[in-house]
Parts: sequence; C-alpha cells; structure tokens
Amino acid sequence: MSKTIRENDSVVLMDGKGNRILLTVESGIKKVKDLGVYDPGDLIGANYYQQITIGNKKFMIMAPSISDKITAIERKAQIILPKDGMFIIFYCDIKSGDKVIEGGAGSGALTILLANSVRPKGKIISYEKRDEFIKIAKKNLIRAGLNEHVNIVKKDVTENIKEKNVDAVILDIPNPWDAIDNAFCALKSGGHVASYSPTVNQVEKTVKKMRECGFSGIKTLETLQREMVVGERGVRPSFNVLGHTGYVSFARKVS
Amino acid sequence: MSKTIRENDSVVLMDGKGNRILLTVESGIKKVKDLGVYDPGDLIGANYYQQITIGNKKFMIMAPSISDKITAIERKAQIILPKDGMFIIFYCDIKSGDKVIEGGAGSGALTILLANSVRPKGKIISYEKRDEFIKIAKKNLIRAGLNEHVNIVKKDVTENIKEKNVDAVILDIPNPWDAIDNAFCALKSGGHVASYSPTVNQVEKTVKKMRECGFSGIKTLETLQREMVVGERGVRPSFNVLGHTGYVSFARKVS
Amino acid sequence: MSKTIRENDSVVLMDGKGNRILLTVESGIKKVKDLGVYDPGDLIGANYYQQITIGNKKFMIMAPSISDKITAIERKAQIILPKDGMFIIFYCDIKSGDKVIEGGAGSGALTILLANSVRPKGKIISYEKRDEFIKIAKKNLIRAGLNEHVNIVKKDVTENIKEKNVDAVILDIPNPWDAIDNAFCALKSGGHVASYSPTVNQVEKTVKKMRECGFSGIKTLETLQREMVVGERGVRPSFNVLGHTGYVSFARKVS
Amino acid sequence: MSKTIRENDSVVLMDGKGNRILLTVESGIKKVKDLGVYDPGDLIGANYYQQITIGNKKFMIMAPSISDKITAIERKAQIILPKDGMFIIFYCDIKSGDKVIEGGAGSGALTILLANSVRPKGKIISYEKRDEFIKIAKKNLIRAGLNEHVNIVKKDVTENIKEKNVDAVILDIPNPWDAIDNAFCALKSGGHVASYSPTVNQVEKTVKKMRECGFSGIKTLETLQREMVVGERGVRPSFNVLGHTGYVSFARKVS
Repeated sequence: MSKTIRENDSVVLMDGKGNRILLTVESGIKKVKDLGVYDPGDLIGANYYQQITIGNKKFMIMAPSISDKITAIERKAQIILPKDGMFIIFYCDIKSGDKVIEGGAGSGALTILLANSVRPKGKIISYEKRDEFIKIAKKNLIRAGLNEHVNIVKKDVTENIKEKNVDAVILDIPNPWDAIDNAFCALKSGGHVASYSPTVNQVEKTVKKMRECGFSGIKTLETLQREMVVGERGVRPSFNVLGHTGYVSFARKVS
Repeated sequence: MSKTIRENDSVVLMDGKGNRILLTVESGIKKVKDLGVYDPGDLIGANYYQQITIGNKKFMIMAPSISDKITAIERKAQIILPKDGMFIIFYCDIKSGDKVIEGGAGSGALTILLANSVRPKGKIISYEKRDEFIKIAKKNLIRAGLNEHVNIVKKDVTENIKEKNVDAVILDIPNPWDAIDNAFCALKSGGHVASYSPTVNQVEKTVKKMRECGFSGIKTLETLQREMVVGERGVRPSFNVLGHTGYVSFARKVS
Repeated sequence: MSKTIRENDSVVLMDGKGNRILLTVESGIKKVKDLGVYDPGDLIGANYYQQITIGNKKFMIMAPSISDKITAIERKAQIILPKDGMFIIFYCDIKSGDKVIEGGAGSGALTILLANSVRPKGKIISYEKRDEFIKIAKKNLIRAGLNEHVNIVKKDVTENIKEKNVDAVILDIPNPWDAIDNAFCALKSGGHVASYSPTVNQVEKTVKKMRECGFSGIKTLETLQREMVVGERGVRPSFNVLGHTGYVSFARKVS
Repeated sequence: MSKTIRENDSVVLMDGKGNRILLTVESGIKKVKDLGVYDPGDLIGANYYQQITIGNKKFMIMAPSISDKITAIERKAQIILPKDGMFIIFYCDIKSGDKVIEGGAGSGALTILLANSVRPKGKIISYEKRDEFIKIAKKNLIRAGLNEHVNIVKKDVTENIKEKNVDAVILDIPNPWDAIDNAFCALKSGGHVASYSPTVNQVEKTVKKMRECGFSGIKTLETLQREMVVGERGVRPSFNVLGHTGYVSFARKVS
C-alpha cells in the first residue's frame, strides 16, 4: 500500500508540532529553510508516511496536499488565497483537460490551484511581463510538482492573447478592463472570464467593460472566512480575522 | 470546432433573459419544467452554442457548467452550497483519481461537486440510508451527467465503512461524531476528513471526537459570501444576503 | 411604584405572542392598525404594566422603549437602522443638551434616535425639502412622543445651513458632498459630521470633499449584525440575515 | 463662544498627526504618558480649541468626546467596545435619568458609556468583586469626568442585587446565568437585561436561564464592523479587521 519516494517528488516533512517543510527530492547537499544543511536525495527509496530522523528531530514524510503546496509558496506581493481561487475554479467551470489563460502569474499561488485542476492533460498559459515574478512563480510551481502543466510566457495580457478557443481567462492585474476585449476574443463560446481586484473602483470599471463587450451572467462576489475556535471554555469565532483580500467578477461568453 | 449534441448529453437551454433549463438528451416526449411538452431527442445532431426555437421562444444550446448543474438540482432539504463545497475540495485535497467516501448523499449537490473533481477515474462512494434521498440524489447525478463516477449505497455511515485506504471522508449527517472512528479506520495515511454542520454544538462535539481519535490539523471554518452590485448610481453590496449555511470542520490522519 | 397613563402618552400594547402596537393616548374613536376600531382615550387612568382586554384579546400596557418606537414607525423609503444610528450617536458624541442639524429627515427614524439622545434640553433641527417626508417624519415623531425636541424645516441642506456653532451635522441625502462646506461652517470647533450613504461611490466623493474642507479624523465604517438562534438542536447564526444598509463616514472640525 | 478650561476638567491634547492625550486638569507636576513631565494645572484659564506649545510640540486643546474617553482608557483584560456597548444602550433603552446595574465593571469601558447616557441625574451601580478592577475602573471614570454618576460596589452580582425597580441590568461576567434570577428581581416591570459573552456556550446557558426565568423578547446579536479605506488607487475594505469580540443577549421583564 505504501508508496516509495522517487527522485523529483515533492514531499512534506512534518515535525511533532505539525510544522511542515515542502521540498523537492533532488540529490545534492543544500541549505533547506527550517531544516538546515541537508541532502533531499537521502529520502529516495523511503516510504511515504514513514518516520525519519534528521539531525536530532523526528519527521513524518508526507505527500503534499494542495493546501501544503499553497502554504509553502514564496511570496512577493499579495497572493490570491484559496477561498477566492477555489470559487474562481467553480464559477469558471475549470476541470481536468481545460486550457486556461492566466493574466498575471504573480507569485504563482493561483497558477498552482489552476494547474492542479486541469491536470493531467490540461494546460495553463500564464502571461506575466515582470521578470522577477516569472522567476518566483516558476520556482513555486516546480516545488509544487506542477510546472509541467504551465507555460509562463513573458507578455502583457492587455496587449494581445494569441491563443483562441480557450476555456477560461483569469485576470489578476491592476487594470483588468484593458484585457477584457482580448479575453472575449480568446474564449470559446460558453467560456468564462474572472477578474480579481482589491478595490471597488476596479470592479466598477471591469464590470462596465464586460457589459460593453457583450459578456453574459456578470456577477461580482466577495468571499469571507472566519475560523471557529473550540476551546476549554467553549466555542467562539477567532479573535484573529483575515481582512479584505479582493472581489472577483465573473462573466460568460455565450454569443 | 463546434461540438455536436449526442444522445444522453446534458445540455442547458438559455433564453434571452439568461434563464436556464438543464436537461438530458433522451428521445421521447415529456413534460419539461419551464419549457412545456417537448422531446429532448430533437436536439440530437444540433451544435452546441447554436440558437434554436422551441414553441415561439429562442434558446441558446449550451454545455452545462458545474455551476449550471448545481443550480438545476432538485432539492429536498438544505444542500451544501459551492462556497462550502469548493473549500471542502481544496482542504481535503480532492483531485482526479481519488476515492472518496461521502456520509449522507442528501440531494446530491456535494456529490456532484465531488464527482466532478475525481473524474475521470476516481470514485465517490456515498452512504445514504434514506430511500427518498437515494432516489433524488441519483436523479440529480444522472441529469448532471456524473452518475457513472458515483456509487450510492444504502447504508448508515455511522455503523460501518467497509472501504479501506480512501483519500477522504466527507460527512453531512446530524451526528457526525458517531462516524469519526469509522472515518479514521477507512482513511489512508495522509487522508482527510471534513464534516459539515449547521450548529456550533455539532461542531464542538465533532471536533472533540476528532481530537480523541488522534486526527491532526483540526480546524473549523465558516465561509460567507456577499455579492457586489454595480448599478447606475454606483457600487454597493447587495441588499439581499445569504444567511448562515454551516460550519466545516477539517482534519487529517497522519499517524 | 406603578405609573398612571395620561392623555397624549405614547404606549405599547403587547399581546401574548409578543406583537406590539404603538399608539398615542388621544380620546376619540379611530381605526388602529392590528387592533381595529378603538378609542385610545379608554386607556387614560390605567396603570403601566397592567393587563387589559380589548375585544376578546388580552394586552399588557407598556411604556414604549426606544426600540419599540423605531420598530413602529411608518416607512417611506429605507430608514437608517439603529445599528448605524447608534454608532452615529457614539462617534458624533451626541448627548443630552446638544444642538444637532439633520440633513434629510426621511421617515424620521434617525430623527427619533437623535431626539431621544439630546433630550430634555437639546434640539434637532432637521432640514427636509420634500413635503411628503416632512409629514411622515412629524407623524412618527409625535407617535414616539419626541416631537417637542425637533424642528423640521422645509429647506435643502445643500443650499444653506443657517444655524451656527452646532454640535453635530448628520447627513442622509443622495449628494452629501454638496453639504460638506455648509456643515463645516455650521459646526462649532470640535463638532462632528457624519454622512450615511449606500454606495461606495458616494463614500468616495464625500470623503474627498471632507479632506478638501479641512476636516480631521475622517473614517468610514460599515456595521453588520447577525442574530444567533438558540434552538432545541443547538445554537447557530440565523438563516435570515440583514443585507447591506449603508456606510457611515465620520469627521471632526478641529481648526 | 469659546469656553475656558477649569480645574478638574477632562481635556484632550491633539498633536498635528491627530495623536490624542486625555488628561485631567489637576495642578501638580507629574509624568504624563506621551507628553513627559508636565503640570496639567498650566492649562487652567486657557480656552478650548486654542493651540498651545508644550516642550517644542504644538497641541490643540480639545474637549474630549465620548470616543476620546473610551480610546484613552487603561485596559486590563478585554473591554466591551462601543459597537457592542452602543447597541446595549439602544436595546436596553438606557437614557438620561435611568438607574442601571452593571455586573462586572472590568476596566470601566462600558461603565463610561452607560454613565454618559444616564447623566445628569441617572446612576450606574456597578458590582465588581475584584479589587484591581475596582481601582482601574475608578481611575478611568475619573479621567473621563464621569465618576460622579457611578457607584462601584465591591460585591458579586451573582450573589445578590440589593437595588429594586431598576431600569436595566447589564452583565459582563464569565457566568451570567448565575445572575439572571437576581436581575429579574431587581428590574422594574418593563426593564431590560443584557448579557455580553465571548462564547456560544455562554450564550446558550444564559438564554436558557432567561427563558426559565420568564423573560420576554429574548434575542442574541453579534455586531461586526469593517472600515472602508478611501485611497489614491480606489476604495476598498481595510486589510486589518477587528476579530470576534462577543455576543450580546437581550431580554425584557414584562410580567
């Protein structure tokens, strides 16, 4: 039943306190954050869900969940959180085999969610014009074991989308209204567009552009999450709450 | 590029106002809700995203999105909404190929989301002890074109889970604490459990049972959604808001 | 200890189910909503918190609370709810003896809250340009027993505020930015302004105008409320939730 | 028009950045937080809303608003915030002249709000059994200039309430259910009780006790607040959000 770890797997090492370290199983000594100097190649041949000792600390070797992969990413700028990303996947009907354009890879957090949803045969084409984000997104995708499902292209999604007949276009850029025409042309009939923005003004401009363009079923949603704490003295919502992230506007091309 | 409609496809007919009718393309005259007496077999051979006229009304024939499928289900009792269901899929790491136990099929809304996520090769085994819900869930799954990915078994998930080494167990029953031991036994190492409950008291009892059982990473979340309306006179949150649905408690088996 | 009912008192009649009827004790047979044909003068000389029988129904005679008074008002257009109104009173430091300008009486709901806070010696001067609202606000104030603390003047608050050195100016009009200059002139040093608006665009325009005008401590808040239901099967948030009402922007004149 | 500062006044000194220092005008050199060594008696005879220079910093002398008074209090343990306190005042119909029992003074934040609402002739009787809280609440009340409207008595509200015929009883203690009988006896007919608790379990136990006791109109509310930020790049909800504080359960004695 137990699976063996092979070169290039992504694995999670969890210590007794539940702290997790996500790493790629490549041979060669390196410095690993929260672990120190280590050769991940030592894990090859071990079994998943087996305990190992590194230094004087015990770890469980786990297969990373999608949540582990998102939690572990290196961030530059704010990422799209799963509470927003999962609803994009639902509302844009993203599924195994789809071809999806992403406008703005950023740190690659949403890219990871999208890649996870279209695999094994689908593809994410991610337009990103900034070199430092191309680099960080790629690094995060590789560590998440999802890089083969993504093409990051160094282009500005507001200028042109070369692909045609795509299943969905997802925008996370400061000026999404400038990419709505391109999205309409790139989408297949029945395809979906989604745009993520922090401010109400961006929402207004984007939605008006979607209407002009002839999109249907336009809708803007905000998703909020609260944790409930089950404690000794009873149950209550958490004193620490996640503040505003962004609004997501959705639409469908039906003509 | 345009796909042809074949017998047994699920299709959506959308009128000019955006109203949608989900139906299965089976030959034979029948009464269709919001459409009247009609033979869906007439659609065979037409193309998706083509316009047709039925009676004196025009419709666009569309491939149903997962959102169309959920919206169209026949409800008996409250369903788990996508805002909650999608987060279950994320947090339980449900993906193509997984084997998932569902405790309580209800009307099949979550079953549809789950089946959509594990296809083409994964499987949902749904325990449901009430005949009327088995019937309605099956009907909804067939209409959504996802029945082949689901086995509904007439059994009580609190009594026994026969399957072993499953990827996830999802509970939507009034007494989830009675199924937590069974879930632990059925799960593979690294597998996830989620439990959906409307009341805080159910959350407290379930979380305490999860702790007793040795589950890790226990966490309870409530997800809220607000629509933003972009109108003539400006942008504002909707005056109509979705009230409380339920809390979801998550945990992982790591030992 | 028990107080006697006198002519012109405002009283509440509460039936066994908790339904409440607010009426003014004036002699003369009239049609009373939810009660039928009745002479409220019959109550004169009875005691508060005594039971009486009208027709074949039993009622408790109660002194109306501020909440009873707000609940009973006749509405034309949306009112400012206590959750928003009470926070205006707090943040604008409105207290016994204050002189407050209200721009837009509407149905008088906020006027009632304000009048209740400044009595016995303070005064609300309410600018309202629409005759039908002057009429309805006055009717509601009389029924609430608070009319003596309010002057409704038929004027547009965006044109001119005659009063000087007032403690606070509260705006509930579609174009509050047009009244911000007038508010600044009318306020004493240390005085407060508040503006209630449903849309984000109104908030933006108003806040920018407040900044231009030299107001300090500008802040915009949205207040949300959720009811918790304690039921047989446990405690949960209500399935029925109040949607969006409005944002309130606050500022203080300190120069 | 401008008022002169007298001995024992509470004043606010505001610097150019809007930072505020609340102090009592008592002669004598002392160390003032955020100001250094200073004799507040130097302010006697100056005018409100006049600028002064202390050290090399400029300040505006202001009359403190109720919001300034709450913001400035010294805290020991969590306080009841104005968003919750103002709704207690509304729902319990607390007004000028009322006699109100407070069970648990804590740091005195709610006591300040209540005292501000019942003045000039009403009275707050605050039961507090812990010496350190009696001390801190008194200190905060004096600095807020509201101490004369409050009697803090060193007693446990769950043991006995000596007063009769009071207008309202407000509870902020860990076991409010133990004080509900006492509250019922102390209240006049038509009087109100409110109980503030952080956990759902406390709410459940308190509401059940209120029902047993024969209270009417029992209702539990949670109040949430979000700030909107009007920035250069548009308007959005704040990234920093206030987490959970507490639930308030309300009821009225009508029999």
